[in-house]
Amino acid sequence: MPSEFNLIREFFTPPNSRPDVRLGVGDDAALLAPAAGKDVALTIDTLAAGTHFAADAPADAVGHKCLAVSLSDLAAMGAAPAWVTLALTMPRVERAWVEAFCGGFYALARRFNVQLVGGDLSRGALSVTVQAAGLVDAGRGLRRDGACAGEEVYVSGVLGDAALGLERGGEFRRALHWPQPRVELGLALAGVAGACIDVSDGLLADLGHVLRCSGVGAEVMRGALPLSAAYREILAETGWTAALAGGDDYELCFTAHPKRRTDVAALAAELKIPLTRIGAVTQGRGLRLLDENGDVLPVARAGYEHFS
Amino acid sequence: MPSEFNLIREFFTPPNSRPDVRLGVGDDAALLAPAAGKDVALTIDTLAAGTHFAADAPADAVGHKCLAVSLSDLAAMGAAPAWVTLALTMPRVERAWVEAFCGGFYALARRFNVQLVGGDLSRGALSVTVQAAGLVDAGRGLRRDGACAGEEVYVSGVLGDAALGLERGGEFRRALHWPQPRVELGLALAGVAGACIDVSDGLLADLGHVLRCSGVGAEVMRGALPLSAAYREILAETGWTAALAGGDDYELCFTAHPKRRTDVAALAAELKIPLTRIGAVTQGRGLRLLDENGDVLPVARAGYEHFS
Repeated sequence: MPSEFNLIREFFTPPNSRPDVRLGVGDDAALLAPAAGKDVALTIDTLAAGTHFAADAPADAVGHKCLAVSLSDLAAMGAAPAWVTLALTMPRVERAWVEAFCGGFYALARRFNVQLVGGDLSRGALSVTVQAAGLVDAGRGLRRDGACAGEEVYVSGVLGDAALGLERGGEFRRALHWPQPRVELGLALAGVAGACIDVSDGLLADLGHVLRCSGVGAEVMRGALPLSAAYREILAETGWTAALAGGDDYELCFTAHPKRRTDVAALAAELKIPLTRIGAVTQGRGLRLLDENGDVLPVARAGYEHFS
Repeated sequence: MPSEFNLIREFFTPPNSRPDVRLGVGDDAALLAPAAGKDVALTIDTLAAGTHFAADAPADAVGHKCLAVSLSDLAAMGAAPAWVTLALTMPRVERAWVEAFCGGFYALARRFNVQLVGGDLSRGALSVTVQAAGLVDAGRGLRRDGACAGEEVYVSGVLGDAALGLERGGEFRRALHWPQPRVELGLALAGVAGACIDVSDGLLADLGHVLRCSGVGAEVMRGALPLSAAYREILAETGWTAALAGGDDYELCFTAHPKRRTDVAALAAELKIPLTRIGAVTQGRGLRLLDENGDVLPVARAGYEHFS
């Protein structure tokens, strides 16, 4: 069986790909030189087998997703991904699993010029913790607390497919296993969005965080929610729950002033990402969900919580 | 049972204690403003129940140790601890456990002015991953690859007590559960040490990393190794293995030029930490362990590896 040090040498010591990495994997800590005038955005997420992914999930998808989740957090801050550290806990070393995991992880890292700069391998129940750091102009990070009454609410891509992937599998599985972090969109939203969050716990829960942090309310038109063609086909049978409360979409939900409509439309065209206006920020507190007739719908399940 | 969001609010949203934290816990990522002219040192470590600590280990000790291990890594780089993120995975929420865990964690964080700026709670086998970031003058971080032939080898504190704590318990247990990261020492070693590492896998293994990275060898005098009085009492019976190859000591091992002897002695006096000269860096490769007569001893077990 390969030793910890051999594994690190073989799989977890990527070549230096960024000039701001003074020292990467291999010392007690990495040494990084953030450019002057930049803030560092820092996020940490764990994916545990049995909770966030099935123990027999494809290893390349696990490698992809654990990084995608963190890059999505950086995107929601408007930060450019830079450095990542990885803590991988496994009951035993299966070389083929590690190799496939790294395939998924590094393919995504290369796409966004993120360098692995540190890691920790240990023995235990299968779980992956990724910490990602990104750079954003000082004081310009997108936050949850910036929404203002009068702004409009947008969401990128489509909602609910990941939840349907968990529930039904089939063609929806791809959305669950291979989420695409909206990095370019997050970067482009600086100066456009009032507030921004990524949809990881479900739209209602995540938009709810934005509203609470900003001290405002919102009206959301259920009929405006962007759904995939496949979801729309089964909508009558399966209902709106996946789109409203399903987790794991990793789309961005943001607010913007109505005078920004043309900017938002231009962004959508440029990035080839649907950006759909789903509602408006209001002065009152709370989130009101409206049906196609403008009637208020009851909001039952707020979103995903691990210990609820 | 308290929900994830309530737990985060109650235990994991500490007040802002550092002016360089623009945004702490509560958004998709923290936003941090490193001072100009500083490099960021970044490290990640996982402690998993059953591997790094017993499932019934005192929760306050687990909270202390998971942070201490990361601060020790920063100390070995000569970095001042600044920000920390925490990923805590638990099979279920036991409020008393979380409270005690936080007691140990925050007491140490306060001592070194470290702010928790992000976290992730999830359900799964008990494990804690801490990612710590520190600040060091640009280009001045202590590294493993800076040792030069002619320098001398030092180690702080005493060695082996943590390993004896695991093996025997009793009075040695404190060293195992409550390691003290050598933060002040690491900061003071900038400009004094050639290379530095923290002793987490055992002296021979960790010094071996320094030698390999630096392309040099070393001679270490076994009889010079600093032992506690309690260890010395049982030395004849238990032997040198705990001091040579025991992990979890979290002392610093560093090299310094002979002309720095008085500086090192002054540091030891100022910080009230024993700094013991245990050998010398040599031009050849490899580590030679010498007994009290200067004869070479066989080096059997190199240190702790998770998957060996």
